[in-house]
Amino acid sequence: MTPSDRSRVAIYPGSFDPITYGHEDIVRRGLDFVDRMIIAVARTSTHQKRGLFTIEERVEMVREVFAGEERVEVKAFDGLLVDFAREHGSRLLIRGLRAVSDFEYEFQMALMNRKLLPGVETVFLAPDVQYSFLSASLVREIASLGGSVDAFVSPVVRDRLVAKFRERAS
Amino acid sequence: MTPSDRSRVAIYPGSFDPITYGHEDIVRRGLDFVDRMIIAVARTSTHQKRGLFTIEERVEMVREVFAGEERVEVKAFDGLLVDFAREHGSRLLIRGLRAVSDFEYEFQMALMNRKLLPGVETVFLAPDVQYSFLSASLVREIASLGGSVDAFVSPVVRDRLVAKFRERAS
Amino acid sequence: MTPSDRSRVAIYPGSFDPITYGHEDIVRRGLDFVDRMIIAVARTSTHQKRGLFTIEERVEMVREVFAGEERVEVKAFDGLLVDFAREHGSRLLIRGLRAVSDFEYEFQMALMNRKLLPGVETVFLAPDVQYSFLSASLVREIASLGGSVDAFVSPVVRDRLVAKFRERAS
Amino acid sequence: MTPSDRSRVAIYPGSFDPITYGHEDIVRRGLDFVDRMIIAVARTSTHQKRGLFTIEERVEMVREVFAGEERVEVKAFDGLLVDFAREHGSRLLIRGLRAVSDFEYEFQMALMNRKLLPGVETVFLAPDVQYSFLSASLVREIASLGGSVDAFVSPVVRDRLVAKFRERAS
Amino acid sequence: MTPSDRSRVAIYPGSFDPITYGHEDIVRRGLDFVDRMIIAVARTSTHQKRGLFTIEERVEMVREVFAGEERVEVKAFDGLLVDFAREHGSRLLIRGLRAVSDFEYEFQMALMNRKLLPGVETVFLAPDVQYSFLSASLVREIASLGGSVDAFVSPVVRDRLVAKFRERAS
Amino acid sequence: MTPSDRSRVAIYPGSFDPITYGHEDIVRRGLDFVDRMIIAVARTSTHQKRGLFTIEERVEMVREVFAGEERVEVKAFDGLLVDFAREHGSRLLIRGLRAVSDFEYEFQMALMNRKLLPGVETVFLAPDVQYSFLSASLVREIASLGGSVDAFVSPVVRDRLVAKFRERAS
Repeated sequence: MTPSDRSRVAIYPGSFDPITYGHEDIVRRGLDFVDRMIIAVARTSTHQKRGLFTIEERVEMVREVFAGEERVEVKAFDGLLVDFAREHGSRLLIRGLRAVSDFEYEFQMALMNRKLLPGVETVFLAPDVQYSFLSASLVREIASLGGSVDAFVSPVVRDRLVAKFRERAS
Repeated sequence: MTPSDRSRVAIYPGSFDPITYGHEDIVRRGLDFVDRMIIAVARTSTHQKRGLFTIEERVEMVREVFAGEERVEVKAFDGLLVDFAREHGSRLLIRGLRAVSDFEYEFQMALMNRKLLPGVETVFLAPDVQYSFLSASLVREIASLGGSVDAFVSPVVRDRLVAKFRERAS
Repeated sequence: MTPSDRSRVAIYPGSFDPITYGHEDIVRRGLDFVDRMIIAVARTSTHQKRGLFTIEERVEMVREVFAGEERVEVKAFDGLLVDFAREHGSRLLIRGLRAVSDFEYEFQMALMNRKLLPGVETVFLAPDVQYSFLSASLVREIASLGGSVDAFVSPVVRDRLVAKFRERAS
Repeated sequence: MTPSDRSRVAIYPGSFDPITYGHEDIVRRGLDFVDRMIIAVARTSTHQKRGLFTIEERVEMVREVFAGEERVEVKAFDGLLVDFAREHGSRLLIRGLRAVSDFEYEFQMALMNRKLLPGVETVFLAPDVQYSFLSASLVREIASLGGSVDAFVSPVVRDRLVAKFRERAS
Repeated sequence: MTPSDRSRVAIYPGSFDPITYGHEDIVRRGLDFVDRMIIAVARTSTHQKRGLFTIEERVEMVREVFAGEERVEVKAFDGLLVDFAREHGSRLLIRGLRAVSDFEYEFQMALMNRKLLPGVETVFLAPDVQYSFLSASLVREIASLGGSVDAFVSPVVRDRLVAKFRERAS
Repeated sequence: MTPSDRSRVAIYPGSFDPITYGHEDIVRRGLDFVDRMIIAVARTSTHQKRGLFTIEERVEMVREVFAGEERVEVKAFDGLLVDFAREHGSRLLIRGLRAVSDFEYEFQMALMNRKLLPGVETVFLAPDVQYSFLSASLVREIASLGGSVDAFVSPVVRDRLVAKFRERAS
């Protein structure tokens, strides 16, 4: 078995609450050097304090965004990321890095995961520089205040954000 | 052509003055998800101020360290990294990240390279935590002061360091 | 219209929960190069997790602190900062930077705001070095534990802090 | 009175929710240059958002971990750290630093404490590099998801974590 | 005298070896809120290690880049920046910030300058995000290796870079 | 032997080119919890690029600054810091931290030294906040440009700086 057989499937874990153009950019960059990518939508997150969308909504949005892309699979996951990786026979985790604070948290997670399951490697990618300031929490905040998020998320996500805050306001 | 065909060859560029256990660790981690790796030893470097070994010596040491590894190739390069990548048909650059200052410099380089040659992607790896404090410049300094570098570099490199500083002292 | 006509009014947004000597220092530095400053007290904040004072209390405290300063105006705001800036004809936002973590969050916000409303510029100022360790959240914590905050906030703010925690304790 | 008389007692404050091998490492390093150490378990914390163990449980665990160590004393504290230091005649606070984000928060606290009580000095130590990625919050998260925390905490702590999450689940 | 009288003239100091699109972006952003800007080209620099262009060449290039802009003046300076500011009756220094390492060095300089000449304030601006990875030293390196710098500097600067390295090579 | 016997002597290493008020502040803070301090003036330094004073001049200046302080000893050292520590029976190294970049370099050194000589511990101190922007290299630059360094260094150091640059200019 060659290494590329072993590593054909990469996992891109996250909260995706909601998925932004920054996340999409990381997926497309990753698809350049892996065969398949499983976007693993985490049910809960210690790091992200206040959620907006349910896990089902978040999975649906990611699926809609990558509807045309056969090499992308979207799954909810609950539990340890390393268990999820083992179940799916993946040895490669993909994460985007934007800023120093990302770097610190992500490295802590990568080293922790390496301790929990040696052999699973995390690779980091830089998003397009135009998304280097973009975060899902800022997108939620702007949408909650009625601002336009057209430049930050796909139309399907934007529509859900608008609907979500209309529903909350009513 | 599938993505893993396109990305079978990764390039790991650096000064390797000299190659440390930290560099070796990054190479072995990379070999887990690429088929072949070209270690590209840079003739000159803006970032590294004071060189110790010649380009020939540095290439030789890297070759000796990876003597048993068929999937690793070692080449000197002079010029733009993106040109080197193009010549070798590689679309994947590999870099290790240890600390925040690495992160900043490496991201700047990755974004610059992306501008110079779109389609070449840089992926970042975390070295084993025990090498997170290790740098070639500290190794040079310790060796120059007569300290033991056995914990930081391969025996072939250690011998060359000892010889180099004996020769300088005489 | 010369640029200084266009930019005579700057906005200094924040939670000011409560206003500290560090905030006051930034205002006075800003008044050195703008004609008028609107201190925009945000009703809600994603960044600041736990609030202490109501928006009305926070506005009152800032007004009391700058009671003698004609060039300072204090307003509550709700919604997008860029909308507030547009309504008040201001093209200049002022923010203080103390540490690396400020820098990262503030740059993210500045770039996001620039995307939402091109032409509104954020300028950053360094507070006096003696306030570089000062944050409203630490002031709230010290006051809540009965410590003296005389060195960190104006007397009018200190009195409100003492009253607030006495009221909470009773 | 010589300085080592004055500084014989150091205080190591924290939440210890729960105590990890990283905390233990800092205590043992500190005992190398102080005579006695008081581990001060904070009742509440602004910095740590979501607590798991009660103050009594946290104190008990720290006591069990250092059961054989006569020079370590464990106390709960409520209120300002500087008041606690004064009451116990200590002029030395000990803190561990792992990453840049620690550095920023810890320096802010050290400077604030110095302002509140001049003469109390904070000294910072680097934990063993293998614990540089370890945090109590990650330990809580892994345990909550059923992962093994054997590599991160003492057996007495691990047992309590398992029991705590079993109790929560039932 | 109103503050905007006092602060009509801002100084933008630097090495400009050579001036990049990032520098140009900062100048244009600054002109949005000041009346005139003096670009102060430093003869020598502690921070920038290896110079390429002479002070005369650097001044000429900046002048050519801003040839059409009446509100920009370009001057060489030698000595302390605060003396230069005093001589030109300016109380406002402008600096661009790209990354954390900029932030640290720039804040150190700003606080030092404030100590040397109270009343001179440094304001920081974020460049357009597409220039956040751009530095004069990377431009020099790419040009020296024969790479295209069209995306990073004005044509007049590019021509000088090409000529400079042709002259060096011959 | 109690720990405070073992740790009575601390070493404060550095280039001290020249010693600043920031260094002096760290020494005085350290003397609060150690009995004796050896200021170890390094002959050469990888980190500090361009030296100004000779090793003899630097040692003399530090001695003059601490002339009245019996508990401080000043020594030149050449070679590995850990060897120096072993020779002087010290197990405690003291270093000041000002900014994130200090933190990274210092931690790298501390972990390297711990690997070279287990049992020697590095403790970090925060200087007084008013010296947090102060560095020997900025002091050298200001003095070289004829600026006043009275706020940054002791009079004996200032006089030497003035003399040094007068001598260079002549």
